[in-house]
Amino acid sequence: MGDAHRLNILVSNDDGIDAPGLFALVEELKRSADVSVVAPDRQQSAVGHAITMNYPLRALPFHKNNEFFGYAVEGTPADAVKLAVKFLLKRKPDLVLSGINHGSNTAINIMYSGTVSAATEGTILGIPSIAVSLTTYHQADFSFAARFARQLAHLVAAHGLPAGTLLNVNVPAVPESDILGVRVTRQGRSTWEDTFDVRRDPANREYFWLTGRMNVTDTDADTDQVAIQERYVSVTPIQYELTNLEMLETLKSWGVQTLR
Amino acid sequence: MGDAHRLNILVSNDDGIDAPGLFALVEELKRSADVSVVAPDRQQSAVGHAITMNYPLRALPFHKNNEFFGYAVEGTPADAVKLAVKFLLKRKPDLVLSGINHGSNTAINIMYSGTVSAATEGTILGIPSIAVSLTTYHQADFSFAARFARQLAHLVAAHGLPAGTLLNVNVPAVPESDILGVRVTRQGRSTWEDTFDVRRDPANREYFWLTGRMNVTDTDADTDQVAIQERYVSVTPIQYELTNLEMLETLKSWGVQTLR
Repeated sequence: MGDAHRLNILVSNDDGIDAPGLFALVEELKRSADVSVVAPDRQQSAVGHAITMNYPLRALPFHKNNEFFGYAVEGTPADAVKLAVKFLLKRKPDLVLSGINHGSNTAINIMYSGTVSAATEGTILGIPSIAVSLTTYHQADFSFAARFARQLAHLVAAHGLPAGTLLNVNVPAVPESDILGVRVTRQGRSTWEDTFDVRRDPANREYFWLTGRMNVTDTDADTDQVAIQERYVSVTPIQYELTNLEMLETLKSWGVQTLR
Repeated sequence: MGDAHRLNILVSNDDGIDAPGLFALVEELKRSADVSVVAPDRQQSAVGHAITMNYPLRALPFHKNNEFFGYAVEGTPADAVKLAVKFLLKRKPDLVLSGINHGSNTAINIMYSGTVSAATEGTILGIPSIAVSLTTYHQADFSFAARFARQLAHLVAAHGLPAGTLLNVNVPAVPESDILGVRVTRQGRSTWEDTFDVRRDPANREYFWLTGRMNVTDTDADTDQVAIQERYVSVTPIQYELTNLEMLETLKSWGVQTLR
């Protein structure tokens, strides 16, 4: 299984094990690491940090070009990473990489992102983790994003990450020569303008499609959202320590502790 | 629809619209508020902050005791709250309450919680929101938790909450006289010891059930996990601003911005 100093990386995603973005990432990482793939068997976008508790999971060997490529899990990205680390893999990976996602994961989208969820689960399991997204839903060239991810993976392996923190990377979908640089960013605050498209089925029963568009309200250059719009690669350290510490004293001043 | 000063509260959950914890909360809130119910049509535990984008949603009127009770949404808790606020309700609610959940939502469980997700979606939509859980999976008396939630709802309505912050409440499942008080807490760091129960189906194919138990490593009295163990109601302000601000300079010191 490679020499002792070679990195051992688990790759997952939310677009499914057969997604071209995952394949591009795996091929690039193999240049300098041992790579295992455990990913959902199908598209799992916007699943947030879901795990499967009410149904059993299956993990089926998945082949590509007549070779074993990885395990396809009938579950969510978090399921795939949990099952990989706790059961399928022979040793704990040094890193978890999730992606390369088709479409950006910035600002409020981080909350819903299956790509980020796979990296979050890696982090919860104590493994430094990176989520990588390319900002397009269309035919895409993943090569620059994959190269960037591989370099960042080696930096993270060398430095480590604080407990509970992962890196969320977004790469602009423009020709490599048009990328202006890399920014360390914070999560933007842009949200979605949700709308529901109301339709009627053949039996005249109403149903709804969630639709809408990102309402970009961020203007600061150091946010993930603005960075990618200005053609910078965005690297955001995010964490799942969720307490609003400043609010603790406020709540006490309301007299919450005296409620009965 | 009640007088102008009467609170207008949306109630949702992740246990499904017919759950007794939701009914107890609704009945108690009706004593001093106008209440609308829009909740998943079935159990949606551990869905995290999932939303449904690849399937259409339906919302069916749900009756209880021959009266209209609310809308049952074929989707996740976040779907239910989004659809309620953006389409089903005539006016924007003053508050969103989610629960009362069967089982605690403390420490790492917050990441996976559908109960918290409904409150998170309310928060994203700009509505002060509260998630309420009772720490038992068994036959439960929701009456104290419901009364506590109603009082807290009025406090929150009076004071407001900071943008992007919600309150996560956990109530110990002990007789009311055994509850020692209320603590304002921070999210604990206890995680799960995940294990997978490996079985074989009738055709001898392997499948896995996710199982395990909380590995309680928190010892500080001001964490949610320890508070409920010591029979205090726990009120935690949580937020979805995820950036690890301290890490920004560290990443720059690594030379991340010079990667190409």
